[in-house]
Amino acid sequence: MDSSKSSYRSGPYKEYFAQAVRVGNALYLAGQVGVDAHGVVAADLPGQVELAYANIRRVLAKFGATLDNLVDETFFVTDMQELMSQLEAVYARRQQAYGKPPEVAQTVVQVSALLLPELKIEIKCIAHL
Amino acid sequence: MDSSKSSYRSGPYKEYFAQAVRVGNALYLAGQVGVDAHGVVAADLPGQVELAYANIRRVLAKFGATLDNLVDETFFVTDMQELMSQLEAVYARRQQAYGKPPEVAQTVVQVSALLLPELKIEIKCIAHL
Amino acid sequence: MDSSKSSYRSGPYKEYFAQAVRVGNALYLAGQVGVDAHGVVAADLPGQVELAYANIRRVLAKFGATLDNLVDETFFVTDMQELMSQLEAVYARRQQAYGKPPEVAQTVVQVSALLLPELKIEIKCIAHL
Repeated sequence: MDSSKSSYRSGPYKEYFAQAVRVGNALYLAGQVGVDAHGVVAADLPGQVELAYANIRRVLAKFGATLDNLVDETFFVTDMQELMSQLEAVYARRQQAYGKPPEVAQTVVQVSALLLPELKIEIKCIAHL
Repeated sequence: MDSSKSSYRSGPYKEYFAQAVRVGNALYLAGQVGVDAHGVVAADLPGQVELAYANIRRVLAKFGATLDNLVDETFFVTDMQELMSQLEAVYARRQQAYGKPPEVAQTVVQVSALLLPELKIEIKCIAHL
Repeated sequence: MDSSKSSYRSGPYKEYFAQAVRVGNALYLAGQVGVDAHGVVAADLPGQVELAYANIRRVLAKFGATLDNLVDETFFVTDMQELMSQLEAVYARRQQAYGKPPEVAQTVVQVSALLLPELKIEIKCIAHL
């Protein structure tokens, strides 16, 4: 296996870390959040989920990959009750992004804060190419 | 390396995500919790740990794997003090599941909530086959 | 790919888990914290970051690896505001450890507690060799 890394940087923290690093067939993505290209955070949780997956897709595309390449997702949410009360809307937006039932493992935990106070979810993914 | 995925689905969220996804030699498991086959959550932390490992073993078995195949564990606990006060009981149950001292990396953090209010721990694992 | 594991154990929890497990080209590290060889926790966040990376480097060295081999980092912090208010100092210490801009993905979340009350950060890493 080729052990040389390739990576993609963008966004306000690009000096600090890459949005994704590929080594061999594995692709590790930085946690993605519901912010659009202008830095605006979506107001509600389903909207943040939709934007986060748009960002995940954009990062994957830099490596010629799609959401089909994801194997593992971790949802870090700031309010589990909010997630549970909007579960169908959240997973509907996610399935719209995937275009079909995702073949991916998932873990969901509630953390006490994310990078910005408005953020309700951060999605950390691993892909294989 | 074969980059096609295989996966195993079960449980109430099987429409949303797989319990594990294999790609190449890597197997990513969804976080497992201390719930039995009837959906009953164990009352105390050591009991939840025992059930979570039973669930991990069940998922691994679908891929012909055992706990020996685990390489990385993350413990998401809801009360670090409770874990510390029951540390020996918790790790005794875990070692019973493994049958020997585990050869696995581990990270332990306290989150503010898991999927169900009664859950005290969720264990996220990566295995290699 | 060789699926046999090799591992490195040290520290107070060495009976419970390895500091790192290698399988094939992948190396999974246990979360590392800002504690020195005498068990003393650094007083402030930049100091804990510096010590945590010293510990990560020490673990990597057991496998003939360096920080250049890291592909993914998760920062579990206990106070996001504290991180944000000391962001430059934290990332300066990190870059000193790396010796150059790191080529690594990163995810940062705030958890509600780590293994010891004094800990402000735990860094979980994956490396490829």
